[in-house]
Amino acid sequence: MVTNDDLLNLKAIVGEKFVSTGESVLNLHSHDESYHPPVLPDVVLWPHSTDEVSRVARYAFERKIPVTGWGVGTSLEGNPIPVNHGIVVDFQEMQKILSIRPEDFQVDVEAGVVYKELNKTLSRNGLFFPPDPGAAATIGGMIGNNASGIRTVKYGATKDYVMRLIVVLPGGQVLRIGNRARKSSSGYDLLHLFVGAEGTLGLITEATLKLAGLPANFMALRVTFPEVRKATDTVFQVMNSGLSPAAMEFMDSNVIGVLNRDRNLAMEESPTLLMEFNGFSDEGLKAEMTFIEEICRENGCTFIDKGIGKEERDRLWEMRYLTFESIKRQHPGLLPLIMDIAVPLSHYSNMAAFIKQEVGDLLAYVFGHAGDGNIHVIVMDLPSDRSRWSRVEEANRRIVEKALAFEGTCTGEHGVGIGKRCFLPDEHRESLELMKQIKNLIDPEGIFNPGKLFI
Amino acid sequence: MVTNDDLLNLKAIVGEKFVSTGESVLNLHSHDESYHPPVLPDVVLWPHSTDEVSRVARYAFERKIPVTGWGVGTSLEGNPIPVNHGIVVDFQEMQKILSIRPEDFQVDVEAGVVYKELNKTLSRNGLFFPPDPGAAATIGGMIGNNASGIRTVKYGATKDYVMRLIVVLPGGQVLRIGNRARKSSSGYDLLHLFVGAEGTLGLITEATLKLAGLPANFMALRVTFPEVRKATDTVFQVMNSGLSPAAMEFMDSNVIGVLNRDRNLAMEESPTLLMEFNGFSDEGLKAEMTFIEEICRENGCTFIDKGIGKEERDRLWEMRYLTFESIKRQHPGLLPLIMDIAVPLSHYSNMAAFIKQEVGDLLAYVFGHAGDGNIHVIVMDLPSDRSRWSRVEEANRRIVEKALAFEGTCTGEHGVGIGKRCFLPDEHRESLELMKQIKNLIDPEGIFNPGKLFI
Repeated sequence: MVTNDDLLNLKAIVGEKFVSTGESVLNLHSHDESYHPPVLPDVVLWPHSTDEVSRVARYAFERKIPVTGWGVGTSLEGNPIPVNHGIVVDFQEMQKILSIRPEDFQVDVEAGVVYKELNKTLSRNGLFFPPDPGAAATIGGMIGNNASGIRTVKYGATKDYVMRLIVVLPGGQVLRIGNRARKSSSGYDLLHLFVGAEGTLGLITEATLKLAGLPANFMALRVTFPEVRKATDTVFQVMNSGLSPAAMEFMDSNVIGVLNRDRNLAMEESPTLLMEFNGFSDEGLKAEMTFIEEICRENGCTFIDKGIGKEERDRLWEMRYLTFESIKRQHPGLLPLIMDIAVPLSHYSNMAAFIKQEVGDLLAYVFGHAGDGNIHVIVMDLPSDRSRWSRVEEANRRIVEKALAFEGTCTGEHGVGIGKRCFLPDEHRESLELMKQIKNLIDPEGIFNPGKLFI
Repeated sequence: MVTNDDLLNLKAIVGEKFVSTGESVLNLHSHDESYHPPVLPDVVLWPHSTDEVSRVARYAFERKIPVTGWGVGTSLEGNPIPVNHGIVVDFQEMQKILSIRPEDFQVDVEAGVVYKELNKTLSRNGLFFPPDPGAAATIGGMIGNNASGIRTVKYGATKDYVMRLIVVLPGGQVLRIGNRARKSSSGYDLLHLFVGAEGTLGLITEATLKLAGLPANFMALRVTFPEVRKATDTVFQVMNSGLSPAAMEFMDSNVIGVLNRDRNLAMEESPTLLMEFNGFSDEGLKAEMTFIEEICRENGCTFIDKGIGKEERDRLWEMRYLTFESIKRQHPGLLPLIMDIAVPLSHYSNMAAFIKQEVGDLLAYVFGHAGDGNIHVIVMDLPSDRSRWSRVEEANRRIVEKALAFEGTCTGEHGVGIGKRCFLPDEHRESLELMKQIKNLIDPEGIFNPGKLFI
């Protein structure tokens, strides 16, 4: 599909050293962290600027070559797998933090900037970009997926932080969208159309992000409960109490068990909540802590590990960040299917109970951003063993259907990619047709990240 | 344009009593609260359901009759003026609060529900819908305009509260968009495409709104300063201090003067800030108040009226809500041009200074949602006197151009309507073309609220 002539022309755009068809490079860009089968691209490019991305897009458009954007491949639904081969545009050479404006709580970045590096730099200004996907994702990938994570319950998702975008359309046209004011009612909201579009409408090359001030005071709690429902009922009550947790995470006893084994810890292997609260003063936080402890005790909690201060907070989250790695490491040879449903909070307890029942004797780990109604289930199994894997997929299907029956969504934060495409007709009904029409309007040749979102 | 046959057919859809061509009804639906010249519709309808709206839209589509949605006409840029005549769809018969779900902080409403009535009902559940446009707007109108107001600095704009929409498209097709989970990464974000589209893409008939819990503790401050820049510098410093005001409003001395005369008050006629803070405890609020007073004093404030408690809070806002009415009442026979620019906070002081200079000796009142970088200027004058009015328009043009040069927006919350269309090419550049393409995709006949947004 990509000819030698194409390679020469692409090299003329991005530079000889920034075009590769090497086997290891193609392999590296053939899969993400999901179980979805790898597909090799024909070529990987590392452009240096919006202009180069635009010229690549224009060239690909004329030659009808598929173009798929690439951050670092930490996605979980096959979102950047180049299923129709073609060109992968890797943003690793576009990692500049262009401008930090502490006075406006804003930063301009190139799409390849890694989230964790950005926050390291911003912390010197007392600022941070709150959506926290856990993984070492790039900003471009986070915007493409509308990523979120443990801080979303208080701070919102990526979509809430994007003020401006520079986007390259399939024909190579460059759009500058948005402004730097905190609010606007000027014309159609094109920003949100590109956020979460998973690179199917355009390639995001630069963004202006809203930032938050680093909180000054922290309170952290780890609380265990005798059963799942007691923990999830506590989530519901804390969220309805008027408090605003900065994080509210659930982990079932299997997750605690795997962390104990993998990290040599000795936590009580019971359903567990991790909570963080931020505040303007320690006095305020202490008043909140008393109140939260009361709710936990009323729900029969068996253990409370609590603390005030940044060290207590960091200790709490260290283990949470390791969950996915620990689970994978404890099951060598198996691959993960990761569910990502979200439901209204009032259904969270029933959803968690349904999940525990549906996964039965599968190797399943249930956890999630409980304050958002988001639940992940990681099932470790063998996709190559069809009879076993079809049981995993069947459980996934039933769990998504239940989430939709609860008026929730098939994906809270991982995106549609390949794995969730089959659920979109059910979730969006007649609206799916309008999504397809918009895709056709912007990408009439269907060459930007083909094979994703729509079946 | 609308024939007797059409009237008969429309009566068959919504019922004889809910179709009017009466002069006073047409007059009432010919203008909003702006200076834009009135245009009479051919007919006004009051449908009762999404199904009726859909059938009206389908009929209008077949006959190519313009269709413009109508809340209560409180908009400020001519947004619902039926400039091409045709049908006005008034949502007054769709005022049902369909379902309140306090457990999920959500409500389902019909588009015609009046914002203030909704919050009165919700307060019994300790909840409220935060975007506060001041006016007695309907929820449909607020969504159409992405309305916001004094609480936006803490709570966000209407767009941040829309979870689900039922939308009738120009051909009569009914779309159900969104879900009830607190977050989602499932497909393109169609919700935000319709929020703020001012009825040019679809008619919103129902919405599921996110709600917030009514705060328990309040602190309110009114602070006066010797000059505008001291006040606006204070805004910047408070917003950068790590505090999160629930409101942060600026008023110039002209506004205070007109309030004094109109309401028989005796406030110091100096640049003034109104601030509100909410908190979980009075202890926390008192710590914040000390800190804020310090910032105000450092900026040379001449007077601080402060208080803790709900009464103090209500007293503060009563006068703010009356501003527009008081200004109009003090200038009988004149009409208002209302500017609505927003800029990054770091430019707020310079923007305010530029405005004071540009309005010169015009009858101008400067105020705004300072914490959002949003400034309103109400100029009272005579649109019929071309030479005078062209001076007003010229000041408006220069002020918008300055806001755009500061990387802001021509409208923070009032929408584009008729008055801001001329600024969209400058603000959105190449993106405006994509907006037009989306308009053509969804409304190929151009019959939904024609003559708005685009020139």
